[in-house]
Amino acid sequence: MTEQPRRRAGGRAARQAARLHAVAEKVPFITRTLMPVEVLSEEGLATIEHNADTILEQVGVIFRDAPDARELFKRAGADVDGELVRFPRGLCRQLVQATAPREFDQVARNPANTVHIGGMATVLAPAYGPPFVLDLDRGRRYGTIADFRNFVKLAQSSPFLHHSGGTVCEPVDLPVNKRHYDMVYAHMRYSDRPFMGSVTHPRRAGDTVEMARILFGADFLESNVGVLALVNANSPLVWDATMLGAARVYAEANQALVLTPFILAGAMSPATVAGAATQTLAEALAGMAYVQLVRPGAPVVFGSFASSMSMQSGAPTFGTPEPALVLYTLAACARRLGVPFRSGGSLTASKVPDAQAAYESANTLQPTILAGVNLVLHAAGWLEGGLTMGYEKFVMDLDQCGAIHEFVKGVDLSPNGQALDAILQNGGPGQHFLGAAHTLANFETAFYRSSVADNNSFEQWESEGSKDMVTRANAIWKKTLSEYEPPAIDEAIDEELREWIEKKKASFPDSNV
Amino acid sequence: MTEQPRRRAGGRAARQAARLHAVAEKVPFITRTLMPVEVLSEEGLATIEHNADTILEQVGVIFRDAPDARELFKRAGADVDGELVRFPRGLCRQLVQATAPREFDQVARNPANTVHIGGMATVLAPAYGPPFVLDLDRGRRYGTIADFRNFVKLAQSSPFLHHSGGTVCEPVDLPVNKRHYDMVYAHMRYSDRPFMGSVTHPRRAGDTVEMARILFGADFLESNVGVLALVNANSPLVWDATMLGAARVYAEANQALVLTPFILAGAMSPATVAGAATQTLAEALAGMAYVQLVRPGAPVVFGSFASSMSMQSGAPTFGTPEPALVLYTLAACARRLGVPFRSGGSLTASKVPDAQAAYESANTLQPTILAGVNLVLHAAGWLEGGLTMGYEKFVMDLDQCGAIHEFVKGVDLSPNGQALDAILQNGGPGQHFLGAAHTLANFETAFYRSSVADNNSFEQWESEGSKDMVTRANAIWKKTLSEYEPPAIDEAIDEELREWIEKKKASFPDSNV
Repeated sequence: MTEQPRRRAGGRAARQAARLHAVAEKVPFITRTLMPVEVLSEEGLATIEHNADTILEQVGVIFRDAPDARELFKRAGADVDGELVRFPRGLCRQLVQATAPREFDQVARNPANTVHIGGMATVLAPAYGPPFVLDLDRGRRYGTIADFRNFVKLAQSSPFLHHSGGTVCEPVDLPVNKRHYDMVYAHMRYSDRPFMGSVTHPRRAGDTVEMARILFGADFLESNVGVLALVNANSPLVWDATMLGAARVYAEANQALVLTPFILAGAMSPATVAGAATQTLAEALAGMAYVQLVRPGAPVVFGSFASSMSMQSGAPTFGTPEPALVLYTLAACARRLGVPFRSGGSLTASKVPDAQAAYESANTLQPTILAGVNLVLHAAGWLEGGLTMGYEKFVMDLDQCGAIHEFVKGVDLSPNGQALDAILQNGGPGQHFLGAAHTLANFETAFYRSSVADNNSFEQWESEGSKDMVTRANAIWKKTLSEYEPPAIDEAIDEELREWIEKKKASFPDSNV
Repeated sequence: MTEQPRRRAGGRAARQAARLHAVAEKVPFITRTLMPVEVLSEEGLATIEHNADTILEQVGVIFRDAPDARELFKRAGADVDGELVRFPRGLCRQLVQATAPREFDQVARNPANTVHIGGMATVLAPAYGPPFVLDLDRGRRYGTIADFRNFVKLAQSSPFLHHSGGTVCEPVDLPVNKRHYDMVYAHMRYSDRPFMGSVTHPRRAGDTVEMARILFGADFLESNVGVLALVNANSPLVWDATMLGAARVYAEANQALVLTPFILAGAMSPATVAGAATQTLAEALAGMAYVQLVRPGAPVVFGSFASSMSMQSGAPTFGTPEPALVLYTLAACARRLGVPFRSGGSLTASKVPDAQAAYESANTLQPTILAGVNLVLHAAGWLEGGLTMGYEKFVMDLDQCGAIHEFVKGVDLSPNGQALDAILQNGGPGQHFLGAAHTLANFETAFYRSSVADNNSFEQWESEGSKDMVTRANAIWKKTLSEYEPPAIDEAIDEELREWIEKKKASFPDSNV
């Protein structure tokens, strides 16, 4: 007997019932039950931490064009020499551990969608930053605000993302200095989930905070996190003024910051896993310490974005073993530090949503979940090393996010899960379980149901047009958009937002810098 | 700053050097360094074991048309009632633990390729059993002996498989009752790695043993494992005569058996993870105990092949969360039992090597490695739930197997791996590492290099024809086959094998049963 599965029909009525009930349970975020996978011993992690401190002490970090940051660190006891800041051993860690919250909530305008960031929670958000979009009909092109809104709507329509994200694509049809208004408004209006704010200029960060005050109320926002912002280091070991300025605005408003060294190992760090992880830890520690100096207690997330460099071409690679090992290592470092961790996603270097895209994405998402990452940007849509947001890729990745919701529940050892009675009462060896009471009772929820995989016979698949996954995904995003309905919003707030944006837009000329 | 990676060139000379040295290190099997991932506590695993014993005690197992098996169990203390055997609690476990080896070697005719099965070793083998083959040029068709030889050659040519496998595809152009001669000979002649024997009839198992005696020498084979054979249960809770008969032949010759319940959860077992795992454990225990009764000490491998059933269509699904949880659970059960474990692979229900195939394969292979599976059939080539062996899929999966070789090494914390000096001596913040001495010293081996992924820029990829991964894989398997050279073989042995086969083939008429 070979291992070709035998196909069994559950009967027409059963199939109809299944279709009727194939509705995914909606949770505001994932709560993991499995312990995180560790790739290093406590001793190994202590070595990484020790080395990071040595780097902070002996090499230091440049805070470029940021005299305020250097002044804060000087007062905290660091050694400031021009733009360079060197830190006594343990200083950054102490600053972070003294005041940064271990976990926090980011509120959504729909309270049911408020997410918890840290601990055993995992929050999935769309890809962030691509200037291009891709779909099967129109190919690759620059993103527009229409695409941006589409991805906000697609995310909002999925039970398997928890967060509306930030720059789901770059709307290049809008002026650079004003597009943030439409981006932030799209998140506020077309989603009722948490969202991310603008970081391309401190003033745009300020605008985001102003809009959040209108949306949530200024008093409420003073003591609640309504905006999350992604702030990247300029590795190796440099934080730039634009990002620091935006971070300062959010921190002063008590909003949350994700401080992420972006490291292409071999170029921005040494070409080893431990080297890339150590440098990431040093850079993130300096960034998080800065935020705590600006406003003690402002929520921070330790971010890592690590890719290994193709030693043939210099191009970044994704879904390869080394970034996975960096991810596992740094997730453990974040737990030891006591702050939430952001990394991973569904990353790929592929230009199209082909097998390469899927292998690489799965090889990133699996470690993301097993390592216990708390905040997952780029969970859906990412192509071409982050340069492209794919419509079909978005649908396919959502399905993977759905599968993860089931995996993290672990093994159900309730009496129903054990199913011992079902076996004992099934009539003996050779008796199948299709019609068993236990099977019928578990019918609707037994197994994860993919919306985009095809499990049918070759003949049926062929008779339906021999469609590959991308073709099926194409139909799904179109259907989803056609059925989308915006979540309800307080009309007075919506009007106030729109009027405020109009006034701001009119108050200064368009510009593309 | 968004997270679009910046591309950096390593220089023409560097790229040329990289290409020259992109040769994978060949190992006879993977030696894992990371502890296996556990999804259940010791207490949870004990519950599974207790329930399996309850099933063996109260429901029992049918040994169909196998009076010899029932007689053996009766003498060992089991309760035999017609074809049904019920086992006192713990009997099967005791029989297995008393004599089955915890780990063993399967020898290859090239001793450098001998594999270790069990413990921290992981052995990767091609897909097993597909009647169809698929490639980009000719589409899906029945497999032939030419295809069979092609896959043996492709496996032999890869540094990332360790085992030549068994029925790499079903050569339907040969008569059923004689094709095993050509299949086993192909493994012996076109590969110098370990291989699997015929199980479709006890006589064919006997032929395989005879051929192995010619290849290895009869004396040598008496005390060494030269053949591994896959024997499947007919779940739920039935072992059939054909498989038992083949198992008996191999066991009596002291060769190794993989006893594998094949369970489509929801049909052949209850529709829960714990239920499927418990039943698998019960069935495998009975099968392994049988082998130990036939010949105490004959090597056995605890096999599991679990798929969840689509509750819509009744079709088997792969790469979904539930089979991964079954896999993690049973890998732990095998460790507690003290026998090697076989499961996993690169499984998918997709008919073509598209994104679905890749997501599902990666979502199977990741748990396979993280759970510490010892023997991995179906590591490469599998499509359409095992009905099809894909040429391009084979190439793509091999690349994934290659990546795993790097992942399992874990994090290098040697001074070179830590790379602290490299960071301390790099000239300070903002200085890149491309030309650093440490980078140059690690250039050749720093990161896993995919043979089939495209990491180049969109523009370069487009100028090279906008090829997806499947198209690239198509060129690779053709090139590999065109460059294949058979490994050297003792000509006298080869002649003896061929003459023996000729004589056997001539001794009885062709038949397709």
